[in-house]
Amino acid sequence: MEQKKGKATVAFARPPVICGAASIVGKKESEGPLGPFFDRHIMDDGKGMENWEQAESSMQKAAADLSITKAGLKRDDIRYLFAGDLLGQLIATSFGTVDLEIPLFGLYGACSTMGEAMSLGAMMVNAGYADHVLSMASSHFASAERQFRFPLAYGNQRPFSSTWTVTGCGSVLVGKRGLRDEKKSFRPMAQIAGITTGRIVDMEFRDSMNMGGAMAMAAVDTILQNFRDLDVEPGWYDKIITGDLGSVGQKILFDFLEQAGFDVRGVHMDCGMTIFDSASQDTHSGGSGCGCSAVTFCSYILPKIQDGTWKRILFLPTGALLSQISFNEGQSVPGIAHGVVIERAERR
Amino acid sequence: MEQKKGKATVAFARPPVICGAASIVGKKESEGPLGPFFDRHIMDDGKGMENWEQAESSMQKAAADLSITKAGLKRDDIRYLFAGDLLGQLIATSFGTVDLEIPLFGLYGACSTMGEAMSLGAMMVNAGYADHVLSMASSHFASAERQFRFPLAYGNQRPFSSTWTVTGCGSVLVGKRGLRDEKKSFRPMAQIAGITTGRIVDMEFRDSMNMGGAMAMAAVDTILQNFRDLDVEPGWYDKIITGDLGSVGQKILFDFLEQAGFDVRGVHMDCGMTIFDSASQDTHSGGSGCGCSAVTFCSYILPKIQDGTWKRILFLPTGALLSQISFNEGQSVPGIAHGVVIERAERR
Repeated sequence: MEQKKGKATVAFARPPVICGAASIVGKKESEGPLGPFFDRHIMDDGKGMENWEQAESSMQKAAADLSITKAGLKRDDIRYLFAGDLLGQLIATSFGTVDLEIPLFGLYGACSTMGEAMSLGAMMVNAGYADHVLSMASSHFASAERQFRFPLAYGNQRPFSSTWTVTGCGSVLVGKRGLRDEKKSFRPMAQIAGITTGRIVDMEFRDSMNMGGAMAMAAVDTILQNFRDLDVEPGWYDKIITGDLGSVGQKILFDFLEQAGFDVRGVHMDCGMTIFDSASQDTHSGGSGCGCSAVTFCSYILPKIQDGTWKRILFLPTGALLSQISFNEGQSVPGIAHGVVIERAERR
Repeated sequence: MEQKKGKATVAFARPPVICGAASIVGKKESEGPLGPFFDRHIMDDGKGMENWEQAESSMQKAAADLSITKAGLKRDDIRYLFAGDLLGQLIATSFGTVDLEIPLFGLYGACSTMGEAMSLGAMMVNAGYADHVLSMASSHFASAERQFRFPLAYGNQRPFSSTWTVTGCGSVLVGKRGLRDEKKSFRPMAQIAGITTGRIVDMEFRDSMNMGGAMAMAAVDTILQNFRDLDVEPGWYDKIITGDLGSVGQKILFDFLEQAGFDVRGVHMDCGMTIFDSASQDTHSGGSGCGCSAVTFCSYILPKIQDGTWKRILFLPTGALLSQISFNEGQSVPGIAHGVVIERAERR
């Protein structure tokens, strides 16, 4: 059966299922609107570690183990790990996953990493290379600020277009349908029906304090590609959920999709705008970071698929591609967005 | 047909072929022993660009296009790009590949990235998700020194265990067998028979000037896994080719494999020890960087498979997982190594 659809989409012949998920967040995230839905939160952002990077690593390890446990599996059952973070050379992932001893594909897609990890994970399971894989992404407010912007101690002002990097790690266990509990009419949390892989889009944005704007056109590009490849319209989805465009990026998304003939206002949700109460939590345009879409997916989106509130969504983590060096050298900030089509899994 | 072998290996049912490859290197590399084999070299390491990072990006773009052209294809024929580099947030890749407009999976595996990219690329083609993909990795001496160690202008001393980051980009076009030229008894350059995916191995090395040592145990781990999963011994391969262990790492590799009961002295080659003449080029333990194994593969290894000198090799790019931040914080340097089994493609 031909699974390739159009230029950048795969529709899986045997949709892999999500059989476990875990979200671990920081204190600020636990105090936001999604607070009750997260599995765990850490009491201080240092998590008792020597530095923020190690705290981020420890969240990865905990989220991985918790998602494995929740799926009723052991580390040994996981064949591949697809994981990444925002830090240079993925050090949160390197030190967070070493104890798992699972063969690792290290990924960098900026804040789109969870989409990249779930895409590759589902491709591997559908192809029969693995029965179970783990897809995971994390970010940490303090380690990201140090990496991309200013030392926190400067106390510099944040413009209203800026976003707040989420401290958190989301981990999803992707597995082959029908491996366990089949007899007990087991219903997995969801199934991954397909993916649309994003390409880099450079609109010559140069403002590291307006990541949403930089990513919006990448989201537009992948959404339109998904519509074309699958020959569908916005109404095919109950929700189209972007990663971290924030309120500033959302406006751009709406405008450009409208120019292309599509109105997504009724079905759009943005994880960055959902995870914080911007007015009371002072997060300006919204949350961001690869942890943002990852933990929102694991805690809030997935249960709504599982309980049937939403039958089918397009989950679209969005990434802004910059580094301290590229920014200092005056380069632009291109974006990338990876789409994952999530559906309610049917009972068997 | 079951393609999973053992814990971490896949043996492909329909081995994808390599139908094009390109290597672009810096001046120093062009003056080394492999000089005559590279496709192109740049005259100065800045390549006429404003900074080293942009020079590295321009090598990526040129290598990608050249490998596509050599395979007789167009950019539009390539469904996925698997690419990475050593820089924080993969900026060499972001800016090097934006013009290609190919859906991208950004990868970070330190100097093992070429192994990771070829592994994922071959998995995708074998699974039928793509007819053609591009697997690519680059590094640049000057951008890497700035990223990981000291500003070049310091002129700091280099210990003999240190390696020299290769300036270069290698690009491999992986395709489905039998798509073109079948009638003209076309023989592809090589075929990818299988892969063994590495896990992170932390031996608590803490010396950023001895990357070979940090990576050697990861190489040992993946080699032993490959032997176990496929039930083979060193003699199954004409060559076992590591990425950039250098002379220091090679000794550790030999010692530990011997302890495990295997003597690989007769079949081992290291790209880092091959690409430079360490005595005359002052590169100490050898070359390194993800460009090192990538350009050595494209220029020197692949033709030896193609002409039948070697029938089967294990290509094993090796990565050391550290960043400026992890080093400054006193963390260890774990390693990872991804194995790719390359065979001579049979004429049809």
